[in-house]
Amino acid sequence: MGEYTVTPWEVSGAVDYERLIKEFGTSRIDEKLRSRLLAKIKDGAYMLRRGFFFSHRDLDLVLDDCSKGKGFFLYTGRGPSGPMHIGHIIPMVFTRHLQQAFGANVYIQITDDEKFLYKRERTWKEIDAYSEDNIRHIAALGFDPDKTFIFRNSEYVRNVYPLLLKTARKITYSTAKAVFGFTNETNIGMLMFPAYQIVPTFFEKKRCLIPAAIDQDNYWRIQRDIAEGMGYQKAAAIHSQFLPPLAGVCGKMSSSKEETAVFLTDDEKTVKNKINKYAFSGGRTTIEEHRRLGGNTKVDVAFQWMSLFFEPDDAELERIRKEYESGRMLSGEMKQEAIRRINEFLAKHNDAVQKVSIEKYTHTGRLARKMWETTYLE
Amino acid sequence: MGEYTVTPWEVSGAVDYERLIKEFGTSRIDEKLRSRLLAKIKDGAYMLRRGFFFSHRDLDLVLDDCSKGKGFFLYTGRGPSGPMHIGHIIPMVFTRHLQQAFGANVYIQITDDEKFLYKRERTWKEIDAYSEDNIRHIAALGFDPDKTFIFRNSEYVRNVYPLLLKTARKITYSTAKAVFGFTNETNIGMLMFPAYQIVPTFFEKKRCLIPAAIDQDNYWRIQRDIAEGMGYQKAAAIHSQFLPPLAGVCGKMSSSKEETAVFLTDDEKTVKNKINKYAFSGGRTTIEEHRRLGGNTKVDVAFQWMSLFFEPDDAELERIRKEYESGRMLSGEMKQEAIRRINEFLAKHNDAVQKVSIEKYTHTGRLARKMWETTYLE
Repeated sequence: MGEYTVTPWEVSGAVDYERLIKEFGTSRIDEKLRSRLLAKIKDGAYMLRRGFFFSHRDLDLVLDDCSKGKGFFLYTGRGPSGPMHIGHIIPMVFTRHLQQAFGANVYIQITDDEKFLYKRERTWKEIDAYSEDNIRHIAALGFDPDKTFIFRNSEYVRNVYPLLLKTARKITYSTAKAVFGFTNETNIGMLMFPAYQIVPTFFEKKRCLIPAAIDQDNYWRIQRDIAEGMGYQKAAAIHSQFLPPLAGVCGKMSSSKEETAVFLTDDEKTVKNKINKYAFSGGRTTIEEHRRLGGNTKVDVAFQWMSLFFEPDDAELERIRKEYESGRMLSGEMKQEAIRRINEFLAKHNDAVQKVSIEKYTHTGRLARKMWETTYLE
Repeated sequence: MGEYTVTPWEVSGAVDYERLIKEFGTSRIDEKLRSRLLAKIKDGAYMLRRGFFFSHRDLDLVLDDCSKGKGFFLYTGRGPSGPMHIGHIIPMVFTRHLQQAFGANVYIQITDDEKFLYKRERTWKEIDAYSEDNIRHIAALGFDPDKTFIFRNSEYVRNVYPLLLKTARKITYSTAKAVFGFTNETNIGMLMFPAYQIVPTFFEKKRCLIPAAIDQDNYWRIQRDIAEGMGYQKAAAIHSQFLPPLAGVCGKMSSSKEETAVFLTDDEKTVKNKINKYAFSGGRTTIEEHRRLGGNTKVDVAFQWMSLFFEPDDAELERIRKEYESGRMLSGEMKQEAIRRINEFLAKHNDAVQKVSIEKYTHTGRLARKMWETTYLE
């Protein structure tokens, strides 16, 4: 059994997702639950069908709430420590699909404070510029501008501070240490931060559903311990795997390692070069061998990316799989398939980035206006 | 040697101030330094002469800065956990005297966040009402409205958050634990709070002088470790003793123990009753004995209060001392002397409370306006 690490700050090694479910105490999305959710959503269904979203907490209760007409709200976030890569936006895209299917409000937290706290050498200007940039890319994904609130922690703190304090005073050092592995050397800002990531789960009295990669689950474990005592509901979550980094099916993509990721701003040529040069291949050592034995789609990053995100059409994906596994399609050709789809996605995305007005999401849309009028003084 | 405890959250036992100087690593205000400061100040000089302000850090450097025309700024604070008693305002009054003597800016932090964090059962409304009340009493002391900024942490956080984070990331859990005695059960809000109490020492690039009771010194020790690395100056401090509680020369007054303190809002009759009933007396058991042996001013709370605050005139205080120690003045008479002075002070003070406009101090005065325009984004 391989060694791996999954925390909000580090993901490394070959992650065993089945084992994670046991370790984190979450539940697998079984056939019955998957069918219930699939009955509701259209776009993005493939991410669920293909198991990219594989684990959950209380997703069944969220669907019960929907049946009863109670509704729910969605919450996810982004740490603006660098430019965004495609791994970052997949849970966001799925969140947008859920919003479209259910008409739910979406809250997106930009944790500029945590990213500033995490490393002493970072300047505020640097983080601030990434926040601006990241918000633009997120807003461009097409969330409903009247039902979506994207907020920087450093800015919304003016409203939310009393609720932040109320949350923080429910969490002891011993809990935070046990859940996050804090040490004597952890700075006191980082120690308090988990409270802020929990706060948005209290933005409505409805149940909160959090679509996010599983490395964020630690926060929700604490939330679920304190929520009811504070008069709120336990957060529900739907957990994704990590989009594998270019170099292979281990760990996750990292903004600080150029060669592991495709960034949202990479141009066509860069994408082509990166995939061709770095994408781990499931092909054989020689063409002859490949023709005879076929490629391995399970470790082929180009195929995995299409499976997890870039090729929603099951029939088309199946065609590619068969071509590759039979040896008819070579690694270079597989990479071309991926490059084309990635570049199509990025072209469309960056077109949207140019056109989007972020003000609606951050300040002037219906939900944003309401949130800026809300104080948390009770 | 008696046992005592002095932390920002607890003061108990008979405090040995000489020993505190050694334990905290501060310096005694010696004759030379006292004379240097006395040469500058008029009002409030008696608090210095009589040793109520007894300890310091870098007060000599503050005076050097003055001689060189560099100037300095003043910073003190108040935790709004209840109504204010006379012990709370003595360092404030001394701060006002320093402002008058040096024309320095004064920053007064209202730590509503810390008081909310400290006890889980407190509501925000409760703390908020105390903040409003306490600010009114502080503003009424006569600070220069254009050179004084009184701010609630919960409100000013909107401006100061990046600087707060910058400070927090310089302080490890291990440091905070060692200085404040935090434990596994401390909540994560309290863990971060020390950073906020340090932040105002960075409001100007000049040296900051903090007049406060010595139980707050822990914060300045950390400040002095990190300030220069952050491009600021080490804070200087001038430490007061505690005004003894009514029941005797031990610990400090407590808002939560009615019978230990005289509150700023106590009416004449309440003051009279409290002093007569609770003020520990240095008198003898019988009148005959008292006439023969005289009273003990060192433990007599009525006398101590006059000495420390309510009787600025040395000659008058000396007269009272002699009368009491000779046995000519009885305990009841000593109490009358104190009651008269306390009630005079409170009448004048509450008159000022009625008249004061707090807006100038919190938002519209020259310094306040400047502070609300300041962001801390570099």
